[in-house]
Amino acid sequence: MQYNPVELILKKRNGYSLTESEISFFIDSYLKGQIPEYQMSAMLMCFYFQGAQPKEIIALTKSYIESGRRLSFPEDLPVADKHSTGGVGDKISLMLAPIAAALGLYVPMISGRGLGHTGGTLDKLEAIPGFNTQYDMQDFKELVLKHRYAMVGQSSEMVPADKRIYALRDVTGTVESPALITASIMSKKIAEGARYLVIDLKIGSGAFMPNLQRAKELATHLIETGESFGQTISVVFSNMNSPLGHAVGNALETIEAIEYLKGNILPDTQELTTTLVSRMLILARMAKDDNEAAKMIETVIKDGSALAKFAEIIEAQGGNPEVIQDYSLFPTAKYKVPIISKESGYIKAIDARSIGYALVRIKAGRMQTGDSLDYSSGAKLYPKIGTQISKGDLIGEVHANDKSKGEKVAELIRQAYKIMPEEQAIEKLIWEIM
Amino acid sequence: MQYNPVELILKKRNGYSLTESEISFFIDSYLKGQIPEYQMSAMLMCFYFQGAQPKEIIALTKSYIESGRRLSFPEDLPVADKHSTGGVGDKISLMLAPIAAALGLYVPMISGRGLGHTGGTLDKLEAIPGFNTQYDMQDFKELVLKHRYAMVGQSSEMVPADKRIYALRDVTGTVESPALITASIMSKKIAEGARYLVIDLKIGSGAFMPNLQRAKELATHLIETGESFGQTISVVFSNMNSPLGHAVGNALETIEAIEYLKGNILPDTQELTTTLVSRMLILARMAKDDNEAAKMIETVIKDGSALAKFAEIIEAQGGNPEVIQDYSLFPTAKYKVPIISKESGYIKAIDARSIGYALVRIKAGRMQTGDSLDYSSGAKLYPKIGTQISKGDLIGEVHANDKSKGEKVAELIRQAYKIMPEEQAIEKLIWEIM
Repeated sequence: MQYNPVELILKKRNGYSLTESEISFFIDSYLKGQIPEYQMSAMLMCFYFQGAQPKEIIALTKSYIESGRRLSFPEDLPVADKHSTGGVGDKISLMLAPIAAALGLYVPMISGRGLGHTGGTLDKLEAIPGFNTQYDMQDFKELVLKHRYAMVGQSSEMVPADKRIYALRDVTGTVESPALITASIMSKKIAEGARYLVIDLKIGSGAFMPNLQRAKELATHLIETGESFGQTISVVFSNMNSPLGHAVGNALETIEAIEYLKGNILPDTQELTTTLVSRMLILARMAKDDNEAAKMIETVIKDGSALAKFAEIIEAQGGNPEVIQDYSLFPTAKYKVPIISKESGYIKAIDARSIGYALVRIKAGRMQTGDSLDYSSGAKLYPKIGTQISKGDLIGEVHANDKSKGEKVAELIRQAYKIMPEEQAIEKLIWEIM
Repeated sequence: MQYNPVELILKKRNGYSLTESEISFFIDSYLKGQIPEYQMSAMLMCFYFQGAQPKEIIALTKSYIESGRRLSFPEDLPVADKHSTGGVGDKISLMLAPIAAALGLYVPMISGRGLGHTGGTLDKLEAIPGFNTQYDMQDFKELVLKHRYAMVGQSSEMVPADKRIYALRDVTGTVESPALITASIMSKKIAEGARYLVIDLKIGSGAFMPNLQRAKELATHLIETGESFGQTISVVFSNMNSPLGHAVGNALETIEAIEYLKGNILPDTQELTTTLVSRMLILARMAKDDNEAAKMIETVIKDGSALAKFAEIIEAQGGNPEVIQDYSLFPTAKYKVPIISKESGYIKAIDARSIGYALVRIKAGRMQTGDSLDYSSGAKLYPKIGTQISKGDLIGEVHANDKSKGEKVAELIRQAYKIMPEEQAIEKLIWEIM
């Protein structure tokens, strides 16, 4: 069908729903260069202001998927994946994928890069010398079939519509639209072939979602869309007020993930990893409940099979698996700058977002797509919200190759901890599961 | 000042006001090609959805004006103008300008072309053989100083920001924003040097404004903006449910305007022309009230001086002034197709918009900028809303050069008249003056 692009913009602007045929026309014509960027950005802004009906979001997701190739795995394989909406110190994928694979799930994980205050799984993996994250879809599928998982970046064959439209959203103030976020996330998770999907929807100072209510709106869209494509899907609402684990920064986080797989487990990363893997197992009917799932997870860590799975994929994706035994093979920062508390009391709040942004100064993260990273830099941060702390206590340490920048970052991170005399309750890590 | 364009889009999108410096940066950078079309269209859509504070609209208008040249006339000259928001059969400017000039006002009238269902003053003037509407600003000023008025198109030196942004709004669904409409209208009326301004804000089936409430919002913006640039300004809310006068179509309307100046005056065009010229005279303190103004206007029609002013400007702008005596010098259509009523009753409503669109089929108007016109084609339409009519009565006649198209248009126009058995009150032409 042919439509007048301006009339479609006006229809959406005036609050009417677009049909599947209209959405498909608009996306396809844009990708063919027949609808210019300025009409697409006007349409995206209408989606931001007017929202979208479930059938519109599903149609959008369908157009996205059909813009590229779609993987399919044999029907009898339990193909599952996890998506996180992004946070600070979130290295969960690095533990979750090998654990899930060790337990017999197939995990075709397509990940992203860090941007702004948030880190990205691809960057953490690339801190491992030689690790390759660029595969075409056929090679990716073969990796998954052979090793039961693989961790790669989005290839140009997969959902090119999302790649182009996301770049446009980024520069036109149209990122924060639940409809557009849903199509962006779900198109990739459907195109990669996942049948069971768990979404870690983060809420708090280090996340994009400010509160549970907004997060639930998005979750409803995600679930409706996934289900319409035959997925079984669960959303975990998790707390992103304190950075996750201790490490923030690419090599530091990968080392922390390896330590986890060796059994040196921190309470918050354990709770989140176990919750997410358990959901995957339960959705795929490989575990009947959380208790059983937790025991299965414990087993593959204790017997070393999850760690072996990680070594296996490092080698398969061109990385040096010796990093698992020898952390000196990771890029290492010259300086460690301690972060010392100047106050006594309880940690009332942590501005995780500003910690993420502070670390961009030493290239642990990036402000713009394409900015280079220093894999060695980052921070170790120990106390969480609710922890009692005394003046002179160590909050953490910054790892940097430039001493004065490291000191500046340490100061900025110190300021991100709000310490008050009143006792403060420890916050829950998992708010709710949907 | 330098700003991040995305941050400005986000600020406006989130409902905050932009400062004068931010607006000026955005417009200037766009005109210099440093802000791409897709960011401008996103910003325009934010203005559509979020509206704008008076100071933002004034800043926008200022940026528009400063994008080009601005005319100024000697302080002691009563420089006045009229702007109409567009309708069907609206040839008022063609009578108003020579009458006002004959009465001693200076009228630097910059007009537009017809688009969609509405006609444009420039097209009507160009139905006069040889009439030139393209002048640079200096030549235009000299015409006005010499003849006390001139009627031209917007030169590329004047408010180029509006020209470019209007073209973008037209293709991105961002025309109907009171803030953007205000900046677009007022920048031109300020840049042309008008000190006293009357706005004919049309409401009804043949206008862009659907109701008085929405029209009053726009009027408030127009008045606040004009006053902030030192203008004295009045808004007349007029009824656009019935096409104005009898003629719709370029040559036909120009001939009707000449007839008016010869004293062959129709009641509705008389009421509107007199009201608008009276406002101009009263604002410029050349008449103390409507009574005095009406007498002054009557005088310059009776003594032929308004008609002489029209002949004067036709000749000055390269046209053939003999058209005034010899209408056969105008392009003339081959066929006249009568429009006959099939019902008896009272005219309850006229769909003036669909009459305008029907006439586009015989090139009396255009769908897209740049479409060519047939100056000879159009229609004469006699009865107004409230008129009693019998089956077989003549509603009007279509003038066309293609007989079968003319018949189709006649049929479409007939259908635009809704005839009901119940008596229907004659509608007021002037709703209100602000």
